[in-house]
Amino acid sequence: MMTRNLAHWALDLKTIPPAVRKAAVRSLYNYIGCAIGGSNHPTVTKAHSALSRLFGNPTSSLLGTAGKADARHAALLNGIASHVHDYDDTHLATIIHPTGPVASALLAYAELQGTPLQGEDLLLALVAGMEASCKLGLAVWPEHYDIGWHITGTTGVIGAAVGVGKLMRLTELELSHAIGIAATNVIGLREMFGSDTKSFHPGQAAASGLMAALLARSGFTSSEQSLEAKRGWANVVAGGGAGASNLNPTLESLGRTWEVELNAFKPFPCGIVCHPAIDAAIQCHEELLQEGIEPSELQEVSLQVHPLVIELTSKKYPRDGLEAKFSVYHGCAVGLLYGKAGPAQYENPVVTRPEVTKLRDRVKLTAKTSFNADEAHLRATHQSGDIEKHIVHAVGSLEVPMTDEQLERKFIDQVLPVLGEPRSMEVSNAAWILGEADDVLPILKQLSQ
Amino acid sequence: MMTRNLAHWALDLKTIPPAVRKAAVRSLYNYIGCAIGGSNHPTVTKAHSALSRLFGNPTSSLLGTAGKADARHAALLNGIASHVHDYDDTHLATIIHPTGPVASALLAYAELQGTPLQGEDLLLALVAGMEASCKLGLAVWPEHYDIGWHITGTTGVIGAAVGVGKLMRLTELELSHAIGIAATNVIGLREMFGSDTKSFHPGQAAASGLMAALLARSGFTSSEQSLEAKRGWANVVAGGGAGASNLNPTLESLGRTWEVELNAFKPFPCGIVCHPAIDAAIQCHEELLQEGIEPSELQEVSLQVHPLVIELTSKKYPRDGLEAKFSVYHGCAVGLLYGKAGPAQYENPVVTRPEVTKLRDRVKLTAKTSFNADEAHLRATHQSGDIEKHIVHAVGSLEVPMTDEQLERKFIDQVLPVLGEPRSMEVSNAAWILGEADDVLPILKQLSQ
Repeated sequence: MMTRNLAHWALDLKTIPPAVRKAAVRSLYNYIGCAIGGSNHPTVTKAHSALSRLFGNPTSSLLGTAGKADARHAALLNGIASHVHDYDDTHLATIIHPTGPVASALLAYAELQGTPLQGEDLLLALVAGMEASCKLGLAVWPEHYDIGWHITGTTGVIGAAVGVGKLMRLTELELSHAIGIAATNVIGLREMFGSDTKSFHPGQAAASGLMAALLARSGFTSSEQSLEAKRGWANVVAGGGAGASNLNPTLESLGRTWEVELNAFKPFPCGIVCHPAIDAAIQCHEELLQEGIEPSELQEVSLQVHPLVIELTSKKYPRDGLEAKFSVYHGCAVGLLYGKAGPAQYENPVVTRPEVTKLRDRVKLTAKTSFNADEAHLRATHQSGDIEKHIVHAVGSLEVPMTDEQLERKFIDQVLPVLGEPRSMEVSNAAWILGEADDVLPILKQLSQ
Repeated sequence: MMTRNLAHWALDLKTIPPAVRKAAVRSLYNYIGCAIGGSNHPTVTKAHSALSRLFGNPTSSLLGTAGKADARHAALLNGIASHVHDYDDTHLATIIHPTGPVASALLAYAELQGTPLQGEDLLLALVAGMEASCKLGLAVWPEHYDIGWHITGTTGVIGAAVGVGKLMRLTELELSHAIGIAATNVIGLREMFGSDTKSFHPGQAAASGLMAALLARSGFTSSEQSLEAKRGWANVVAGGGAGASNLNPTLESLGRTWEVELNAFKPFPCGIVCHPAIDAAIQCHEELLQEGIEPSELQEVSLQVHPLVIELTSKKYPRDGLEAKFSVYHGCAVGLLYGKAGPAQYENPVVTRPEVTKLRDRVKLTAKTSFNADEAHLRATHQSGDIEKHIVHAVGSLEVPMTDEQLERKFIDQVLPVLGEPRSMEVSNAAWILGEADDVLPILKQLSQ
């Protein structure tokens, strides 16, 4: 009954606590900034040119561009764009980026449908979808991720189906089938990290989740026990293990604990496990400046990090911006040199700049199994001594969350190169108020060019 | 290098032995009959009506109908149609239905491209894709299937990408990326068996494989070791086990042993594991007729089968045609009663017909672990004695393959209710010669209405 219970809960969700609502608004806002910021990235433009011959009736906006596509391709491309800079949100307990798949499907569907949609209904559907993704992720974590699945895609497709299905007001049975149709599309291998296909995962999750809801609305059947059955989603994606045994406790917490509240926002456009090290590097940069020491002249940088940092982001010689996102060496070097690790510091020319590669080569990495995942220690050695920085919780963590003002600076930082002034500020304002609108459709128009 | 090796082999394939060619022609012919025969099935029409709002430029035929769709949706819908009657081909060593995903993608792409395409090139691409699917299936069999994956979808998406990529004449690197983009879409849980979503799997595999090739042609990157990497496809889909260790020997046999030659065709539109029992029932029917015994008056039917038959097809009380495909009881009952188990015997009214349900209830099933998978023993008890039939190899097996004439009767049997006479015979002739055509495009037109 767990699939049915999830469907029932999602359809029944009519009010959310104010703190959950606020978290959803911030998640949606951050998503829009990421999707616009990524909209002109080569990964997105390659996908657009590859698939434009297949586009249908252009109902749905490609955020940040003047273009539209059919709802499925809009969901795909906005989903790719939202993740391509690795700058989107993170549900820390599962490393899921939960908003991209769900919001990309919801916005594309809203415009396909074309009838007025209250902001509050959009937020409720977003929360339902995000909670579904994150609770399912918790049920199969960590085996699922350890095996090699990109958990954002594998759970995102189900969240997208739940969200769109709620907007469609499917029956409980229909939504159960939609969950099954979505669950049978298990999208995303971690092996693709560092390539265009990583951000394809949330895009394809959005597109396939949307399709699942459309199919279910037409009476297309799947299984009513798709998540919990012996050979259902949870057991299969946990490697044939006992994934389903964790489904019950996690799904029972739906509406009692809210995963959306535990969603964090990245201050840096790279793998979140790098963030404590970058935070330390930026703090070190500031101290170096105060002391009049030139960061490029550092002799050695010794970095102690959680073992996962080494497992996920130890690309010593990244060749371009995409690979640099998986290089704690790069993040550390630009943090030390420039006191920033924003999108500009992950542009290809910066990654191969001699001053960056030289400092990168001087960074030594050590795994500390006693560290928390968001802990790091940096010691920078210069001619006349050492500077040490210890980060207990990185900026952007739940303990040190980004403020609304920081989120807005990040948004503008992403959107400005795409939309310029003064459109960026207008779009930021529109993105903030989406959840309060009587009708989101005219606001969605403003998010395009 | 195994991903690269597969890409290299597929692109390099320029000639095939005559027996392989013949097997490919039969596979394609059987596929077309299945796709036309399934084209008006509710599963297909529901999917069509759910998704038609998203259709793009209608370049590609929906086989057996007057309609067209964009290439991706045509691949999806033809793939669904080809599998919906569970009447398609089977690579017996892996239970993969290999033609559906690959051929659906190839035909849709050929019409999207719109330039003349020689039948020989179509066959070569089909063989490359089918070999890719089946060799990969062999590498991860049986763990992959045991965990709960629908191996037709999970391997079919990669075969479709290989086939379309070969038609596109991608470079080796591009095709490696296409394989990776396809591999990251792991489509199909066995939990969906008995619902519309089962046949969605080969359809979505075709559509996603086509998309993967289109993306790769535009320079979209994935991994160059997507199949063999530590967290690549083979290990992940074998449940985090050592799937990749089998990749090397199976992929090394590419071009030495041909899986297409081991592709079998179903005489009955249901799960292949039922076939020996149905074969026995039909032979029993004939003997009952000769002896003047009314099959509906049988007192008991005792059936000994391989344990997999019970695991997969023991639905004792199927409620409709779809469920009846997973009921060896139903197949046995109609075989005994009518001497046939064709599409007509899997129509909903037959499944609930009192004479069928009564005889079904009298069938007793016993697992025989000593039996081969295509072995069955039937004892039918009537008022004055028993009739026994022992099947060593079922009709449609590699040992007792369907003849071209039997394949043609099956084709006509499927196509006639959709196209009527005399179109059915014309279409059958067109389907036979597709592989010899100087240009397949005008022939593809004939396969529609």
